[in-house]
Amino acid sequence: MDQKKIEVCYSPALFPYYENREAIVVVTDILRASSAIVTAFMNGVDRIIPVETLEEAKAYKDRGFMVAAERDGMVRDFADFGNSPYNFTAERVRGEQIVYSTTNGTNAIKLASSGSQVLIGAYLNLKALAQHIRKEQKDLLVLCAGWRNRYSLEDALFAGALAGMVLEDSRYNTVCDATLAAMDLYDTAKGDMMGYIEKVAQRHRLKKNKLDDVIGYCHETDLTGIIPVLRGDHLAIL
Amino acid sequence: MDQKKIEVCYSPALFPYYENREAIVVVTDILRASSAIVTAFMNGVDRIIPVETLEEAKAYKDRGFMVAAERDGMVRDFADFGNSPYNFTAERVRGEQIVYSTTNGTNAIKLASSGSQVLIGAYLNLKALAQHIRKEQKDLLVLCAGWRNRYSLEDALFAGALAGMVLEDSRYNTVCDATLAAMDLYDTAKGDMMGYIEKVAQRHRLKKNKLDDVIGYCHETDLTGIIPVLRGDHLAIL
Repeated sequence: MDQKKIEVCYSPALFPYYENREAIVVVTDILRASSAIVTAFMNGVDRIIPVETLEEAKAYKDRGFMVAAERDGMVRDFADFGNSPYNFTAERVRGEQIVYSTTNGTNAIKLASSGSQVLIGAYLNLKALAQHIRKEQKDLLVLCAGWRNRYSLEDALFAGALAGMVLEDSRYNTVCDATLAAMDLYDTAKGDMMGYIEKVAQRHRLKKNKLDDVIGYCHETDLTGIIPVLRGDHLAIL
Repeated sequence: MDQKKIEVCYSPALFPYYENREAIVVVTDILRASSAIVTAFMNGVDRIIPVETLEEAKAYKDRGFMVAAERDGMVRDFADFGNSPYNFTAERVRGEQIVYSTTNGTNAIKLASSGSQVLIGAYLNLKALAQHIRKEQKDLLVLCAGWRNRYSLEDALFAGALAGMVLEDSRYNTVCDATLAAMDLYDTAKGDMMGYIEKVAQRHRLKKNKLDDVIGYCHETDLTGIIPVLRGDHLAIL
């Protein structure tokens, strides 16, 4: 039987070595961009336009768009939102188009666009993602946004959770070491995720700026069936 | 107290994001280059000259040097040796200079040369490495050779073993997610390393070419106190 494969790429800088035009690429940046994007769609945002540079984001702002823009966790002064999922309330985002630029997440989305489909993944929509991928029966490549191209443990853990769930379908297989490692780490962490996540570097960064209030929320599973998908230059609901 | 830091870089392609000129860089390619290099020095080789390309290796061969050269696990026809530690017997290597070019390992050695010292690490010299690093009291950066810039589990496990051993010295600390993940994976694997290593991709590659006879040997610990160090263009004993 021709099995579908699962791979995990731990950094945008490694993407060329994992690139697979047949694959569904799930981009994840658990703390906080992908959790924020899923939340925005849960709260009724119409579309999100990811842009790589702050200059682009600023240009959109000047044209009247709502803009979410952060670097190193801090909202930029010209922007309407930062990167916290709590920013994207229904009151603020319902029916809106939002331009979005973050330190790590939005660049990863652009890279991933060579895949057959680009989805935004978070614990918030974990099961819905796994079900969709298994239904499509395509290869899965999880692209971790990481931190300035470095490995991020919280993204790897999510990759392990998603890979494990897709692998329950016996038509999937993996011989990818990064996937195997991510699944083992998730197995180690899952019994006490909040205790485990204490140690990750991004928690220290967020805490330093008093932005760590979202960590529990960003690890809540299956709050929604919504899957953001890249359509041309913007994200919409699948 | 000014603590020394430990970091792990999972791929040569990520090295720019981890580069640290103050650090001792330990290059590892457990299956098989770094295990083979340590073995060659155990068996009395005088020096090893790492070269990146097969063309360079061939040019050295034409000038009368002994040459070890492989790609994708297979010895090249012009070479005296491949990449198996079993090739580097005392009978063949004692007192010799050997030019060495491999798929992943030798490129990583060149990259690492921006560090304050470049060492070759394997399970074979694990404890000696940890003792030397702690004595020097310098930052530690473990550079995993990986596989064509992809993550290799067997290299990550070794990085975790070494990091854990150095961290027993309370003057060391880590806030590097890749290091934390590697240590947790090593903890998961160490009780039954040979059982665990069954699943890694490189074992499948070696087995396909009947080159997997060395896997047990490459995971034997502390057979030697010898540490290969990069001195200019060649490796010698520290």
